[in-house]
Amino acid sequence: VIERLCIIGAGLIGGSLARALRTADYCREVVGCSRNPAHLQQAVELGVIDRYDTDPVQAVAGADMVLVAVPLGAMEPVFRALRGHLPADAAITDVGSAKASVIEAARRGFGELPAAFVPGHPIAGTEQSGVAASFAELFRDRRVILTPVEQTSTEATARVRAMWEAAGAVVDEMDPAHHDTVLAATSHLPHVLAFALVDSLTRLGERDEIFRYAAGGFRDFTRIASSDPVMWRDICLANGDAILQMIDRFSGDLQQLADAVRQHDGETLQAVFASAKQARDRYVDKHT
Amino acid sequence: VIERLCIIGAGLIGGSLARALRTADYCREVVGCSRNPAHLQQAVELGVIDRYDTDPVQAVAGADMVLVAVPLGAMEPVFRALRGHLPADAAITDVGSAKASVIEAARRGFGELPAAFVPGHPIAGTEQSGVAASFAELFRDRRVILTPVEQTSTEATARVRAMWEAAGAVVDEMDPAHHDTVLAATSHLPHVLAFALVDSLTRLGERDEIFRYAAGGFRDFTRIASSDPVMWRDICLANGDAILQMIDRFSGDLQQLADAVRQHDGETLQAVFASAKQARDRYVDKHT
Repeated sequence: VIERLCIIGAGLIGGSLARALRTADYCREVVGCSRNPAHLQQAVELGVIDRYDTDPVQAVAGADMVLVAVPLGAMEPVFRALRGHLPADAAITDVGSAKASVIEAARRGFGELPAAFVPGHPIAGTEQSGVAASFAELFRDRRVILTPVEQTSTEATARVRAMWEAAGAVVDEMDPAHHDTVLAATSHLPHVLAFALVDSLTRLGERDEIFRYAAGGFRDFTRIASSDPVMWRDICLANGDAILQMIDRFSGDLQQLADAVRQHDGETLQAVFASAKQARDRYVDKHT
Repeated sequence: VIERLCIIGAGLIGGSLARALRTADYCREVVGCSRNPAHLQQAVELGVIDRYDTDPVQAVAGADMVLVAVPLGAMEPVFRALRGHLPADAAITDVGSAKASVIEAARRGFGELPAAFVPGHPIAGTEQSGVAASFAELFRDRRVILTPVEQTSTEATARVRAMWEAAGAVVDEMDPAHHDTVLAATSHLPHVLAFALVDSLTRLGERDEIFRYAAGGFRDFTRIASSDPVMWRDICLANGDAILQMIDRFSGDLQQLADAVRQHDGETLQAVFASAKQARDRYVDKHT
């Protein structure tokens, strides 16, 4: 059980974790922290946090668990502000979508990696953002990946794992670089493609008409293009190498498909489409 | 009101139209036709059609409306079979996702374009296929595009329009080539991207792991990759030129985004993502 959870960044992820832990009766008090007092006030009114402080040092005082749930670009300043101010018995974790960059930010911000810092990433979210969109079931049966490194204490890792399990998640551990490759494939590349497609279409002359004839498939396909632009800018900057590799690989595959269209090669088209359908149907059967 | 509707191709689209017209009490009898008697028997058992004939000539006898709802590659043989056998007072329409190619197939199949033939395309569907997936509300408030040409009788166009409106759809008319460009952008390109992405990921070494960490965003993004491979092969062959133009345009835009990632150009990334999000949010607000 957590006595005092401090959530830095009062948005969809931090808010949903606070709600989940309250629902599970796993947490006695939640203190919020953000640069934006209006978000914090809203979080109090929604019953997501008990109180708040806009100063990270004050906010973490007396906490035994600290969750840093800010955009990747804001991680290092937060870590720097907390340098020398982490309570001795606190574990600290984050929710960043790219792990190597957060670990580097922690190393720079804290001067050296604290043993209490457990890099983490819940594989959950919606295209919504903000605490108003938070809900207790967001992590139910979803995966959380922890990427502890050499310096990370096993006790801190165990406490962070227990917290996510209390929120209903399934926790795995892996190497940070491997996490970054897997996420580039399953999340970062699809987001880049969705943003690129919608942006591409808005620059066609028939824009209004085009969106008028976009049906349900298009709506689902582009849902992730409604995600937060700043968050995704930061992810692209933080995990650029892995994302570029995935874009290159995808572009090559797309060109092969274009060649098949150009050559009226129905056999190749059908084989690729059937293989993709089979993989997705199998995946959906397995995971939903 | 339609006295006898003949549906050639007893799948999701044909079945859903039959259900919708029955619900609206707009159709007295529905005759099915398909190469596969099992599908037809299932359609009878589901109450979607009243009776069937596997011979198109027999099936259309006495019909005042004929709907051809077969994959694009099967259109020309159907039209050829019906040559000289269309009832004098029947209107005939299709549901193909590419219009120039269907018009050409009709010209070849019938010898010349019948005045009664009204090329059409309901912008509706799901990633499912088959008559078992059909439902009466599929076309409710969805767009149907008719692309009548010089030879098409205005009376036939009016009857086909009235039929789709009875099924709950909003009917527009446009030039076939323009239809093909708009659909390449809003439907064909997204499907190609979704198929290409899933296929690309299945060829990564970490395939099983990758699908394990794919979350809700990925599921929505790739839903259309569960669509029928034969139908999409045919669409890529039938509307290849417009699709290739869209792939080229998209690939260029994707490379620009990749360049921004490579150059750590956060400003460009955020601007593109914000523009895409704004366009999609506006579109969703407007159309859902």
